[in-house]
Amino acid sequence: MIIIGEKLNGSIPGMAKAIEAKDEARIKELARMQTAAGADYLDVCASVQVDQEVDTLKWILDLVQGASDLPICLDSPSAETLVKALPFCQRTGIVNSVSGEGNKIDLIFPAIANTEWGCVALLCDDRGIPKSVEQRMEIFEAIMKRAKEFNIAPSRLYIDPLVITLSTDETALTVFAECTRQIKALYPEIHITSGLSNISFGLPARKLINMAFMVLAVGAGMDSAIVDPTNRDMLGLIYATEALMERDEYCLEFIGAYKEGRIGPPLESRKK
Amino acid sequence: MIIIGEKLNGSIPGMAKAIEAKDEARIKELARMQTAAGADYLDVCASVQVDQEVDTLKWILDLVQGASDLPICLDSPSAETLVKALPFCQRTGIVNSVSGEGNKIDLIFPAIANTEWGCVALLCDDRGIPKSVEQRMEIFEAIMKRAKEFNIAPSRLYIDPLVITLSTDETALTVFAECTRQIKALYPEIHITSGLSNISFGLPARKLINMAFMVLAVGAGMDSAIVDPTNRDMLGLIYATEALMERDEYCLEFIGAYKEGRIGPPLESRKK
Repeated sequence: MIIIGEKLNGSIPGMAKAIEAKDEARIKELARMQTAAGADYLDVCASVQVDQEVDTLKWILDLVQGASDLPICLDSPSAETLVKALPFCQRTGIVNSVSGEGNKIDLIFPAIANTEWGCVALLCDDRGIPKSVEQRMEIFEAIMKRAKEFNIAPSRLYIDPLVITLSTDETALTVFAECTRQIKALYPEIHITSGLSNISFGLPARKLINMAFMVLAVGAGMDSAIVDPTNRDMLGLIYATEALMERDEYCLEFIGAYKEGRIGPPLESRKK
Repeated sequence: MIIIGEKLNGSIPGMAKAIEAKDEARIKELARMQTAAGADYLDVCASVQVDQEVDTLKWILDLVQGASDLPICLDSPSAETLVKALPFCQRTGIVNSVSGEGNKIDLIFPAIANTEWGCVALLCDDRGIPKSVEQRMEIFEAIMKRAKEFNIAPSRLYIDPLVITLSTDETALTVFAECTRQIKALYPEIHITSGLSNISFGLPARKLINMAFMVLAVGAGMDSAIVDPTNRDMLGLIYATEALMERDEYCLEFIGAYKEGRIGPPLESRKK
């Protein structure tokens, strides 16, 4: 499971405040916390006005890369910003994201064509997020065709089938899971990823919906997630699901994460 | 989702102590607690020596049925005991259980043939619990054939595909889930049920494995479980999974259980 730490995102109030206040210590702390919790990549998203976005990203990236050796998942709604900010990253990371929208692919795929960078690809286009599995799979096939043009191997792609709000569309999980199964059957080496926050929007006890969504999505074949790696319950359920799905022989990864204190009760609370 | 409350089982230390001490108040309390938490049935299992089992069951059943109006899930490893104890139950309940072992079906199916009683059926036989889906499905087909002889409709059966220990067999969940999918495809009106404790035996942080198992099993089509209904996290994940699997239109059941305080933070801890 590839864990992309979500906390360095300016759309989260705490991070927005840190950016606004130029709070370098807090940004470094968020990088270190997620690194210690076992993240594989650190998502970095400025979420500021577009004329300040590249400069803000450079400032955050310098801080984060001074505090952690993890590669970056470079995150912006603007393809232009992503291309401009790529050179600020010291290690090969993941661009977040392309989709079928506008000229995103035309800008980003050439920029990463002759590199080892990964890329998140969302299954939406200029018409929005399609409701059906079939329409999302059409966007997927179009993205794969463009990836082939630029020699971007499936193993470098992180497909996000996209999660809509369960309270307004009861097929939110089932469509996501069916896309995941179909994509993994076509390209076993491709990655499937997702954020979590949309699924439970508007519902009470959102944590329960988020946790059950994560287990079902990983069960369907999702092998990456943009989550808070310091959320012990969520990380623990991810490890448990991997073991239950025959992806962790003798439960060694699960037991290892427990022994390191990354899942289950915190080390300091356990009886000696 | 049909919740069978598991707590009145003499194989659980607290209940064993209550039986030993003839602690009527504790037994009534366990019945009331599970009823208040929203159980649909109360499992009652004496787990005492066989010569005392029928008398002990009668004593427990009288106490439980004095404290709760819920129907009983009458539980014993002995088919003879089950047949003898059936008349002590005031309401139509579920017999737990038959299987392909010995003469269990020959004793129990005639006893419930002309009633509305349900029956748990385990997919094992005199050779034990088969490792493969195919062998478990053979036992399932044999049980269905016998059920038809006695005019027991599929909707009265609660098939338990059986859960083995994940730490020694990594297919424990995947075989369970595949049996569940196949049985539900053949007989949509049949119930699938399971207890939880075996899956995580021998592992640390068992709660994580149990919770992920529950979500994946319900995701595969399990529509009943023998669990502790006062376990709020587990109950919450069951409701969340049902909503995610398109079995709870507009999440009304999920929201209702939250409003009643049965899932999510306890009512008394919420801000007014």
